[in-house]
Amino acid sequence: MSMTGVLRPGHVQLRVLDIEEAVVHYRDYMGLIETHRDDQGRIYLKGWDEQDWFSVVLREADDAGMDHMAFKVLDEETLWRLQSDLKKFGCDVERIPEGELDHCGERVRFVAPTGHVFELYANKDHHGNGIPTTNPAPWPEGLKGMQAVRFDHCLVYGEDLDASVKLFTEVLGFQLTEQIVDGDLQLAAFLTCSMKAHDVAFIRQEGPGKLHHASFLLKTWEEVLRAADIISMKDIPIDIGPTRHGLTRGQTIYFFDPSGNRNEVFAEDSHVYPDTPVLTWTADNIGQAIFYHSRELNERFMGVTTGA
Amino acid sequence: MSMTGVLRPGHVQLRVLDIEEAVVHYRDYMGLIETHRDDQGRIYLKGWDEQDWFSVVLREADDAGMDHMAFKVLDEETLWRLQSDLKKFGCDVERIPEGELDHCGERVRFVAPTGHVFELYANKDHHGNGIPTTNPAPWPEGLKGMQAVRFDHCLVYGEDLDASVKLFTEVLGFQLTEQIVDGDLQLAAFLTCSMKAHDVAFIRQEGPGKLHHASFLLKTWEEVLRAADIISMKDIPIDIGPTRHGLTRGQTIYFFDPSGNRNEVFAEDSHVYPDTPVLTWTADNIGQAIFYHSRELNERFMGVTTGA
Amino acid sequence: MSMTGVLRPGHVQLRVLDIEEAVVHYRDYMGLIETHRDDQGRIYLKGWDEQDWFSVVLREADDAGMDHMAFKVLDEETLWRLQSDLKKFGCDVERIPEGELDHCGERVRFVAPTGHVFELYANKDHHGNGIPTTNPAPWPEGLKGMQAVRFDHCLVYGEDLDASVKLFTEVLGFQLTEQIVDGDLQLAAFLTCSMKAHDVAFIRQEGPGKLHHASFLLKTWEEVLRAADIISMKDIPIDIGPTRHGLTRGQTIYFFDPSGNRNEVFAEDSHVYPDTPVLTWTADNIGQAIFYHSRELNERFMGVTTGA
Amino acid sequence: MSMTGVLRPGHVQLRVLDIEEAVVHYRDYMGLIETHRDDQGRIYLKGWDEQDWFSVVLREADDAGMDHMAFKVLDEETLWRLQSDLKKFGCDVERIPEGELDHCGERVRFVAPTGHVFELYANKDHHGNGIPTTNPAPWPEGLKGMQAVRFDHCLVYGEDLDASVKLFTEVLGFQLTEQIVDGDLQLAAFLTCSMKAHDVAFIRQEGPGKLHHASFLLKTWEEVLRAADIISMKDIPIDIGPTRHGLTRGQTIYFFDPSGNRNEVFAEDSHVYPDTPVLTWTADNIGQAIFYHSRELNERFMGVTTGA
Repeated sequence: MSMTGVLRPGHVQLRVLDIEEAVVHYRDYMGLIETHRDDQGRIYLKGWDEQDWFSVVLREADDAGMDHMAFKVLDEETLWRLQSDLKKFGCDVERIPEGELDHCGERVRFVAPTGHVFELYANKDHHGNGIPTTNPAPWPEGLKGMQAVRFDHCLVYGEDLDASVKLFTEVLGFQLTEQIVDGDLQLAAFLTCSMKAHDVAFIRQEGPGKLHHASFLLKTWEEVLRAADIISMKDIPIDIGPTRHGLTRGQTIYFFDPSGNRNEVFAEDSHVYPDTPVLTWTADNIGQAIFYHSRELNERFMGVTTGA
Repeated sequence: MSMTGVLRPGHVQLRVLDIEEAVVHYRDYMGLIETHRDDQGRIYLKGWDEQDWFSVVLREADDAGMDHMAFKVLDEETLWRLQSDLKKFGCDVERIPEGELDHCGERVRFVAPTGHVFELYANKDHHGNGIPTTNPAPWPEGLKGMQAVRFDHCLVYGEDLDASVKLFTEVLGFQLTEQIVDGDLQLAAFLTCSMKAHDVAFIRQEGPGKLHHASFLLKTWEEVLRAADIISMKDIPIDIGPTRHGLTRGQTIYFFDPSGNRNEVFAEDSHVYPDTPVLTWTADNIGQAIFYHSRELNERFMGVTTGA
Repeated sequence: MSMTGVLRPGHVQLRVLDIEEAVVHYRDYMGLIETHRDDQGRIYLKGWDEQDWFSVVLREADDAGMDHMAFKVLDEETLWRLQSDLKKFGCDVERIPEGELDHCGERVRFVAPTGHVFELYANKDHHGNGIPTTNPAPWPEGLKGMQAVRFDHCLVYGEDLDASVKLFTEVLGFQLTEQIVDGDLQLAAFLTCSMKAHDVAFIRQEGPGKLHHASFLLKTWEEVLRAADIISMKDIPIDIGPTRHGLTRGQTIYFFDPSGNRNEVFAEDSHVYPDTPVLTWTADNIGQAIFYHSRELNERFMGVTTGA
Repeated sequence: MSMTGVLRPGHVQLRVLDIEEAVVHYRDYMGLIETHRDDQGRIYLKGWDEQDWFSVVLREADDAGMDHMAFKVLDEETLWRLQSDLKKFGCDVERIPEGELDHCGERVRFVAPTGHVFELYANKDHHGNGIPTTNPAPWPEGLKGMQAVRFDHCLVYGEDLDASVKLFTEVLGFQLTEQIVDGDLQLAAFLTCSMKAHDVAFIRQEGPGKLHHASFLLKTWEEVLRAADIISMKDIPIDIGPTRHGLTRGQTIYFFDPSGNRNEVFAEDSHVYPDTPVLTWTADNIGQAIFYHSRELNERFMGVTTGA
């Protein structure tokens, strides 16, 4: 098998202020599939083309933000090896028992130096993507709203960027794909555990554990337009877009869920291999790095996050 | 590092009857970048978004066909390990010295049970994709024709499908992504060493070592239309398309180079992980498996190949 | 007012063998909106972005085909003027009373020299396009299937092409936009009463009054792909496509309703003014004229029609 | 003939500060075709799919802005009839002799109540669209930059909106397609002489004769993305986009030529007939009317114009 170690972002657990309002947003507007509600009242959803039982968990709480982001690893052997490596790196590691999230196996939880809670797990129940595995159609009927394909990545803000990048690259085997630098200082790091332009990204900002956005894949730039139309039709607060990122070349639009968590939907436009050169954006060109067309950061994009 | 072992299709060496006619086709019409001509008169080209020095080698000969398809592996250690594993599997293995192809390191050559010559190599000179690695634009100026992004895969025909699939999966670490089956008989196997729907594919057909097509990636379905227009404008013999494949969901068009080698350009529409279920198409539905819209095979598609 | 005379194809009345099967095809698969059923059991539908009450009427009968194609004219004054002009031209003209079709005003019926029944009318009840006229969204929610935008044109086969073209251009004010010629013989004539590449088209073929296809507009080439997928998913008999026409540059796919009437859905790619040059395709290049990519006619496309 | 009277925007003459800098912008970046330079040093260009000799004239001057916008009318009879009607309406009318602009016939010039100079003409030399009229390809080779298809419309700012709208609708036969209203006050009027969503548009603002933007058609939303990329790659000042307009549903991006004249490139998404209802946007929703996604006007869009 060529892909080993950490496979992909498996899910993100988000705090929302009103869970019924939230599920309308994620299910009816973004088009995620609701697959489960648990005893604690958490709602589980997935992008239509994901195979596992869920990739988003909504939890009602008094403040918005990300509880944790979890990565699926190849197998249990990998899980225990990585648990051990995380400890060696100096992380506090906690084991979350199977069934704390329904349909999910045991998880290994750790806090990254930037203050974000991440988890690893090897097992999650198989749900399927709504298409048979024999003679499958290219897409299922009955999709809603933006028709999000999969949970793709999170971008998070935190102070100790260097240590989090070190942890993800040296312990978890991620690869740096793109970065923003100010001289010797790395301001942003885009990291992949696959061929994607990013599976997680860090921005250096004060304060621990902030979520900038959770991102979901769409198929095409035309689907980004459709998402943008829905954002207006459903009166969803927009941040910015449609536009292209310089970083990753992604075709994107940003908006907020009813609790203030930022979402992205985007179409991807690049791929990386282990031998692909790192792309570097310079701080004096940060506007173009982030919003390729306007070449200007808006304050909202830099300033608004949801909590740890 | 999550990606290990065999990384990707690195290049294909094709035999063409008239090399100057061929280079017009591959460079001016398909939009590959010519990067080199060697002492033997071979012409080297690459898709614009590939980083290594070449991914297509054209060699003038008396008959058309594929000389070999080569895969890049992660590093030399991997190369020698796989050489040893190939020998254990029973393959005759030949070492092709560095410089037999300019800009390419030593290669390990073997013949698969279907009669095709494959190679592995760990090193090829870096060329770049025409965009700086600092503050890169999303695409370079001056692209021609179909603007092919990368050499993506080959599909080959041969008798001993089972043994070739065994070799690629058990020795080289490829993953079966999709297949056509007639009862217990596997008629087609699509194999990946990455997240792509296929890096190589085999169809069970009589006779050894036939090339069905060499395939190149385009960005979008709109680019497939543009390619189709160019095929007509340049009077390129078409096979079929634009259409979608059932297998892989790819959006595709097939045509022939002036020597009769079949080419595909396509936009991709899926991704796989090690835990993605294998998709199976049944022989009674082979038309839809291959051409999702017409649901009919044309004779040309099944019958015309170029030689070993 | 710059647009006068005949405005547009207003509706087509089609004969179908099983009306409930037909309405599933036109409503659920093609995405037309069902707006009415009349006392005779006829079913009325419209493309979502059409304003009038209907643009397709399905009538159950023992054979398939087109009963008539009707054009909306600017106003009643125009209607009576054109009635008079048709009589002068030598047409038998019949007045069909208001209410023969519900929601439609009085119609002027005539038989063209190619044996097709055409009608003119000035009034049809306004239905709206499902979007308010104050602060409208760009598209309505709840569209189905191929999301056909509007009934666009018919292409019909008949012997006396010259006289029908003379009637449409000299009496009804249509403009020849494109044609296929074999020396001095016009084999096909594409005619517009607007800026569209065609509002009606005639092909010279033996036998009177044949319908080749009724055509409906889609928004984009990506929507043509989606339509093609639906054709396969719903097991709709396909004729050909997706492809581009040489004539009109349209991006197209052809298929059949359950009764054997041919439909087209397409995205348009050109516009004409009164001073736009006529485009001519030569008979030796008829394949490219009709199917720009394959440059080959298929027999089915030329041979299969539904009756007068 | 169904289309009569005023046919289309025929050209716009723009003042630019440095004509060589301007021609790089309009020709190399926007992709207009340079077709002529006259004795006065003016440069003539056209969109690739326009048939007449030019649709943009650049004139070097000390300030930026629009000299005049000219409409082509059906024929000379129409021209003289409209000249007479303009006089009756109370306009000062001036006849500009044939040859004042090379390749253009005699023009009838008048100043609209908003202070803008408009012209009508019946004749302009035929240039062609770079594709033969026999067996034409769908597009010509060698297009540059944004590959603008045609000059589409201008949007202008002025005080006496009511009178200019009266003149265009009552004298010149234009149709109101969409408007912004604040109670009884019309703030914006979009007017067509064809099936397009607008051939000219007026916004009520203080001061006479201001140009807001000159607009050019692109084929698709994907081409809008490509234009947006070019804007950044060529360091062209952007105003806003890519986005969609509420008004007209157009898919758009705005930017500035080197002299500060605002340009738009856009893909169209609607069509109108004489019986299409007028769409009305309310002043309290003006943000969505103009920028459908962000639902917010930016100051630059409202405030920056170039002079009379």
